[in-house]
Amino acid sequence: MNDEQGMKAAMQAYIDHFNAADPEAIVRLYAEDATVEDPVGSPVRQGREAITEFYRMAVQTGARLTLAAPIRASHSNAAAMAFDVQLTMPEGPSVIRVIDVMTFNDAGKFQSMQAYWGPSDMESLAD
Amino acid sequence: MNDEQGMKAAMQAYIDHFNAADPEAIVRLYAEDATVEDPVGSPVRQGREAITEFYRMAVQTGARLTLAAPIRASHSNAAAMAFDVQLTMPEGPSVIRVIDVMTFNDAGKFQSMQAYWGPSDMESLAD
Repeated sequence: MNDEQGMKAAMQAYIDHFNAADPEAIVRLYAEDATVEDPVGSPVRQGREAITEFYRMAVQTGARLTLAAPIRASHSNAAAMAFDVQLTMPEGPSVIRVIDVMTFNDAGKFQSMQAYWGPSDMESLAD
Repeated sequence: MNDEQGMKAAMQAYIDHFNAADPEAIVRLYAEDATVEDPVGSPVRQGREAITEFYRMAVQTGARLTLAAPIRASHSNAAAMAFDVQLTMPEGPSVIRVIDVMTFNDAGKFQSMQAYWGPSDMESLAD
């Protein structure tokens, strides 16, 4: 089982690597056969190639992530965090409010990521 | 599929019923055969009887729930929320930082609840 502080550090590194626009560093947090479901309800991406492609596109949006509350752990190999995504949409500055749930393998890598957000969690900050 | 606002309203009702110390109202938000895993990594409770017993004990602690960030929906029958649990432990006022993930059945009832929190998410607010 992963220790809580190790899982929280990996979650924080995810935020930091995203904000550094470093998709390769993000992908190194993932297991080789990991899955990404972002948003929950969309097709699941599996494996480092698909996940790398996803994050290369994601960081190209110029989005920045800010924790909305401290990262939560669990009594298992899982952790969760609420954060806000600031990005510029065609209509101007916007925010997407997200909760990510990660599970971890025994090596401390993300085995799965699920991102909870829907259209109602996107808000334009333009006047 | 549930609409996002309906799922968010059920999540908010969960908070409100908890703070009203009304376990029966909480349990009416759940499907008959629902499951509760609180915290994630502990034994799963299934069915209204087990879930009712759980919430009767939970509200007896006098705990109060406060959202830490707006409730998130998804592109599926699932939603998530980050909240803080204020309660009085033997050592004094304390907070537990939690993220709940609910899935919904077609009738808009909670089919499953998973609560992400670990020992590192409990903090004493006493001096």
